Amino acid sequence: MIKHPLPKKRYTKKTTTSNLGMTLENDIEATNNYYLETKRAVIYKKPTPIQVVNVSYPARNKAKIIEAYYKIPSTTDFNGIYKGYYLDFDCKETKSLTSIPLKNVHPHQIMHLKAITEQNGIGFLIVHFSSHDEHYYLPFEVLYHYYQESLQGGRKSIPYQTFVKKGYLIPFSLNPRLDYLAVIDKYIIPNL
Amino acid sequence: MIKHPLPKKRYTKKTTTSNLGMTLENDIEATNNYYLETKRAVIYKKPTPIQVVNVSYPARNKAKIIEAYYKIPSTTDFNGIYKGYYLDFDCKETKSLTSIPLKNVHPHQIMHLKAITEQNGIGFLIVHFSSHDEHYYLPFEVLYHYYQESLQGGRKSIPYQTFVKKGYLIPFSLNPRLDYLAVIDKYIIPNL
Repeated sequence: MIKHPLPKKRYTKKTTTSNLGMTLENDIEATNNYYLETKRAVIYKKPTPIQVVNVSYPARNKAKIIEAYYKIPSTTDFNGIYKGYYLDFDCKETKSLTSIPLKNVHPHQIMHLKAITEQNGIGFLIVHFSSHDEHYYLPFEVLYHYYQESLQGGRKSIPYQTFVKKGYLIPFSLNPRLDYLAVIDKYIIPNL
Repeated sequence: MIKHPLPKKRYTKKTTTSNLGMTLENDIEATNNYYLETKRAVIYKKPTPIQVVNVSYPARNKAKIIEAYYKIPSTTDFNGIYKGYYLDFDCKETKSLTSIPLKNVHPHQIMHLKAITEQNGIGFLIVHFSSHDEHYYLPFEVLYHYYQESLQGGRKSIPYQTFVKKGYLIPFSLNPRLDYLAVIDKYIIPNL
């Protein structure tokens, strides 16, 4: 089943200051806009791929798509450049207190991130544990380890404790909302 | 006016072996697929951005988009990673023998490529002079020079001779069809 894109603004009833009632994807887009405006990085969400089947032209030079379907993306949702480094990532959300199921990440996304890291890019996931109200940066290598284990009959999820131990907590603030570049500056680039 | 995406396969009547009857965009996608399969680089075309207005559900779990419109892309069409370098480019085609009009490149694409090069990414255009049956790699710096001149009342196009002198001819072959990474290897990376 293909995941449909979230509505542009999906305000929830949550009122904790750390969430501000926005979805994870909106938080990341707001962060990326901040990075772009402050010239810190150039990172975009890729458009949702759509297979257009039928287009009508109610007026000259105006195309109206009247039949189209969502396609499964071949890559992750976000990529861009920071200080000359190529970044590539996806974001995932879970309500679970204890783990995130691996089925949240498509195998083709894992293969894509693997190809990226083989080209010396920085691949990762941003995972929101909403019950903990915490966002983690998970390096691709940790994700890939669990993915391989799962293929060999191991557990089908990544424990919350793995995020605490091998991931990095992303600072949440007003602007930038989710400063994942702070994690990259502190923990990733020094080890490249 | 928004440029509509080309049909997937638009065969022309041309029969020269160097063109193979495909469009420029198809040539680049075939090249990128070759790079991906041979693990040389990971470069994708971004999906065409589409504003979805109305979706119907003829069957459970099956979304059919019944009203949508093409949006103007905020960035270029292609980006990815090669040997750790972030690449970002667009492709343009002209039938003119003598120049390519600057209006073929949107100002927001130029601003995007400028931001990319400021982050130490490799920004460029691939231009097909179909009348010459030649493909050129044009570094962003050359494009930007002409863009700035045009804003100050200068010429509104980039001459073919500029491509000959300041661009790089991209080798055309069966596989990869348009080996623009060969240009990057030989002329761009050594000067970074």
